[in-house]
This record gives sequence, C-alpha cells and structure tokens, in this order.
Amino acid sequence: MNKINIINAKETEKLLSYEKVIETIEEVYTQKANDRTVVFPLVFHEFDPGVADMDIKSGWLKDSKIFGLKLVSWYGDNVEKGLPALMGTVLICDAETGAPKGILDGAYITGIRTGAAGAIGTKYLARKNSENLLLVGAGHVASFMIPETLIAMPGIKTVRIYDPIDIKFAESLIAKIEANHKGIKFEAVTDIAKATGLSDVIITVTPSKTPLIKKEWVKPGTHFSCIGADMSGKEELDPEISRGARIYVDDLPQNVNVGEIEIPIKNGIITKEDVVGEIGEVIIGRIQGRISEDDITIFDATGTALLDLLTGELAISEAEKQGVGTVVEL
Amino acid sequence: MNKINIINAKETEKLLSYEKVIETIEEVYTQKANDRTVVFPLVFHEFDPGVADMDIKSGWLKDSKIFGLKLVSWYGDNVEKGLPALMGTVLICDAETGAPKGILDGAYITGIRTGAAGAIGTKYLARKNSENLLLVGAGHVASFMIPETLIAMPGIKTVRIYDPIDIKFAESLIAKIEANHKGIKFEAVTDIAKATGLSDVIITVTPSKTPLIKKEWVKPGTHFSCIGADMSGKEELDPEISRGARIYVDDLPQNVNVGEIEIPIKNGIITKEDVVGEIGEVIIGRIQGRISEDDITIFDATGTALLDLLTGELAISEAEKQGVGTVVEL
Repeated sequence: MNKINIINAKETEKLLSYEKVIETIEEVYTQKANDRTVVFPLVFHEFDPGVADMDIKSGWLKDSKIFGLKLVSWYGDNVEKGLPALMGTVLICDAETGAPKGILDGAYITGIRTGAAGAIGTKYLARKNSENLLLVGAGHVASFMIPETLIAMPGIKTVRIYDPIDIKFAESLIAKIEANHKGIKFEAVTDIAKATGLSDVIITVTPSKTPLIKKEWVKPGTHFSCIGADMSGKEELDPEISRGARIYVDDLPQNVNVGEIEIPIKNGIITKEDVVGEIGEVIIGRIQGRISEDDITIFDATGTALLDLLTGELAISEAEKQGVGTVVEL
Repeated sequence: MNKINIINAKETEKLLSYEKVIETIEEVYTQKANDRTVVFPLVFHEFDPGVADMDIKSGWLKDSKIFGLKLVSWYGDNVEKGLPALMGTVLICDAETGAPKGILDGAYITGIRTGAAGAIGTKYLARKNSENLLLVGAGHVASFMIPETLIAMPGIKTVRIYDPIDIKFAESLIAKIEANHKGIKFEAVTDIAKATGLSDVIITVTPSKTPLIKKEWVKPGTHFSCIGADMSGKEELDPEISRGARIYVDDLPQNVNVGEIEIPIKNGIITKEDVVGEIGEVIIGRIQGRISEDDITIFDATGTALLDLLTGELAISEAEKQGVGTVVEL
C-alpha cells in the first residue's frame, strides 16, 4: 500500500501559478538540453478516424526523479452530450522506487503547460522591444497562452486575437481575460493579413491543416511560436516563411514528424539541418537565439509528456504543502 | 469534472472472486478471438538494465466499451527498502466518451488475472482426467494460479510445487494455501525430473532464462501452461518439447517475440505456422484443442492489457454495487 494524491482540475488550477509553471517548463527544456530526460514512444489509436482517438505520452525526468504518463482522449461528439471533447489523466511515479505518487486531471495541465511553452519560445527568441502580440486561434490553450506570454514579455502593449472559425470566439476570450490585464489593449480582428503586418510576436494555436499566414504579410523581425501542429499534416504558416528563418524546436525527431517544420521539410524548402537547435539549448546558452533585429524566428513546439509530468509534480508538491487533494492508500 | 473510483489492493482483493475472474478472462479471450479487441503497442523502458524498468501496456475491448492501460514498474532493489519490487496502476476509460472511470492498484489484478489465464489454458487443453498438477515457481503468481486451477480442474488430487531457487518458497506457499483446499494433497518437491514424470498438468511461472524441464522427463498426454516467459530470452521448457506438441497462444505476434515459443522458433524446432491458434479460438469452438490422450499440449500465455482492463472493470462494477472505493471528482 502506497499513498497517492488524486488532484482534480479545480484543485490543480488553484495550486499552479503561471509564473511557477513557466519556471517549471524552462526547467524541463533545460534538463532535456542537458540530456537528462527520455521521451518514451507515443501510443496513438483512432477509435473512429476524425471522431474519436486517444494517445498515451510518457517519459522520464532524471534530475526530477519522476517518470509517468498522460493519457488523453479526444471525442469530437462529446460536446453534444454536454461533455468536454478533450479529457486526460496524468500519472506520476517516483523514479527511485517506481511507486505511483500522484494522479491529476490532464486537461488543465495540458493548457497551462502549453501556454508556458509558447511564452518561453517568445521570451527567448522575440525582440525584447516587442509590443504587438497576435494570437491565431482563440480556444482553450489561447486562454493560457495570453496571460503567460504577458508575464514572459512585460513590454507587450497590444494583444490582437484572430480566430479562423468565428470572431465571436476571439471576442468572448477577450471578455473573459481583459479585466486581469489592465493597461493592455485587446482587439478581436478579422483581417489577419493586416494584423500579421502589425505584429512583433505571432502565436498560432489552431488545429489547421492549411496555412493561415502568408509570407508576404510578415514584417522583418517577427517571432512565431507555432503550437497547433502536433500531428502529421497540420500546418499554420506558409511553408515559405521557414526559408531563411532561424528555427528552434522542442524535440527535433518529433517536430520533423508532426510539427510545423514537417511540411517545409517535405516540400524541400528547408532541411532538418537548417534547424538551429532545441529551445533548451538557447536557455542554457549552448546555442544562440535571435542574431539580428530583422531575423524571422520560429519556435516549433509539439509538446512532450515531460511538460505534463513536471507540471504535475509541481502541483503534487504544492498540494502536499497546502493539504490539497484526496490522498488514497493505493 | 468526472466521477472516478480509486480502488486499492485490499479492496480489489475483496471485490474479486476467482470464479468471476476466470469467467472474465474467458470473456477477454472470446472477444479477442472474435476480433473485438485491439492491443496497443507496448512501451518498455529500462532505467537500469536488470535493476529497474517499467512498461505501459494498453488496449481496447470493443464489446466491453472500455479502453485503458496498466503501468507496471519493477525495481529489484525495493525489497531491501521494505517496498514491493513490482508496483502497478491500472487506468480504465469509458470507450463511449473517453472519460476515465476507475484507477486500481495493478499488482493484485496482475496476479489474479494471470492465475486465471494459466487455469483457462489448463481447462481447455489438459486431459479431463488430470489428477496431478505441478507448479514450477512458488512466487506471487503461483499463489493465484493454484486456487484458480483447482476451480477450473476439479479432478486434481495432488499439487506438487517446485521452486528453482529454494524449496522453502514452495513450503511456505503450501503453508499459506493448503487449509483452503481440503482433500488436496500438497507436496514441496526438489526432484523436478521425477515430479515432471508424475504430472498431468505442469504450470511454469518463473522468470527463468534457461530451460527447467527436459523433454525426456515428460510423460505422454502432459499439458503445459507456460506463464513465465514474457520477455525476449526467457524460457522455461526444453525447446525440444515443442516439437510435435499442440501449441496454443494468447496473442500470436507477442508470443513469437517474447513468449515460450520464441526460442523454439528461433532454433528452427517449430515455425509460427505450427501454432494451432489462440486459446480464445478453442473457447469459441473455431479450432480444436487436444485431439488424443497422448498429445503434449502447450498454452503459451504472455499476457496483454486486455486481461487487466476487463478484470479492473469487473472490480469497478462490483465496487459500485457494494459502495467500495474512494470516489473522486477528477
């Protein structure tokens, strides 16, 4: 029998601050760059293609002494049943004994850790004087991405939000978050060409399978954090934007297969060797980020279980301090 | 938020009867034979080869409308720390919505479902008049294997137990279980050659990497349920025993890679085509089991997540009826 803490979504939300999650995700990238992590093979199954699927991501963080997994299911029809389409469970084990130590709802963790990933790419690669942020996509992850990017980039003054499906999603996201960000100007936009030309930082978080941003709209010096592409065939940027850009990734073999760089590589616009390196290598100073104010920089983030595991571990450790969660003898 | 039942090892033990678990595992094999199951790819990682590893087995039972996984860790050094070497967690999800529905300790479930697997192989393949059972290996799984085989084979009169490490393990297992089986003669043995020659049914449950039973000791008509081999390189029988035997498996591609038949196939003693079929095909009557009283029959059971998932589902449904477990809003 072994004590294990079960932490639900509401508890996780209270336990995790954006600031600490950003630090945590930087720590994940640092451990990865120092070769102190292992990402295990992905298990993916489509129950009904395009309608229902599940995946199991797992891995090991040596310095944090944890391993574990996240099982995520996506059932498109759930919304009609009044259920969330995306559900997930994170299981964290002690890598010194193998004992399970915590189980957490996976949906909130996925949102907050993905928001941190995009924010960190921006922090290390965007121009320091960036003032104009454009979010492409106004879904669940965008609601984390904006506050976390505003923490990582305190110079941002204007946030524009474009949603490829309906401007209403952008408007309701703004209504939900703007009160928390006094002094920031929020704007829901329909003209993505114009908004692109006004932006220093563009974060894409859609499930798009066709490019949303054309090369000719982009001004010199723009940074992109590309978050949406996490499956073969997904893309958010005109592949030509990659030509000549300084490109950074989160897990090169995975980015080549399923990330934003998949299609530019397949089209011969860039090669794998054109990727400058992983974001963690920038964080630890092994490789250089942006060189000139005019560089186009791209952070292609596909996400690994490592992000969920160390974020979950943070929640477990905060829960222990605060006496939160349901402790069960398993 | 979604209600999920957390069921620990002690609760699982009270909820599951041997009889119902045997029925449940027959149901798993039946669904598998009817092509109503999917076994997802195995994730396996050695943290420290021979010292610590973990695996994640997962799958989907279409008729039972569940999918999920079992994460099992094995830390050989845990025993010195007063912890179990083997620890596991089972996560079961509703295949209609993707929602997690239960989390269970994996160690007890692994024992009871593996015991049922060996018992079912014996029930369908051994001679009906079998009286003499030999257990090779006196560990955790053997303590389930014996009572479950005695239920499946009510004609058994004598149970001999041989442990390749120390007869004390066989003696202490007998001391633990014999009071529950009045009328059965139990005997701890050291002469495996002689015990083999006396046996109608032999069940092997060791982690051996060298054969423990030689062909010349085996009498005609013997049935083997081979449970120990679940990794490349493991073997419990002299590969020559396979020559001319009627061989049945639980998941052919997995058996070829990691089961008892791996080495006889690699040595050219048998081919994959010599395998008669999967045990579920015998249960549903698609293929024939034993033909003659003199056949040597072998059931090579490697185990899949399907067994854990449907056994876990049985525990969840019993727990709901009895109000057992810790229900958490995840």
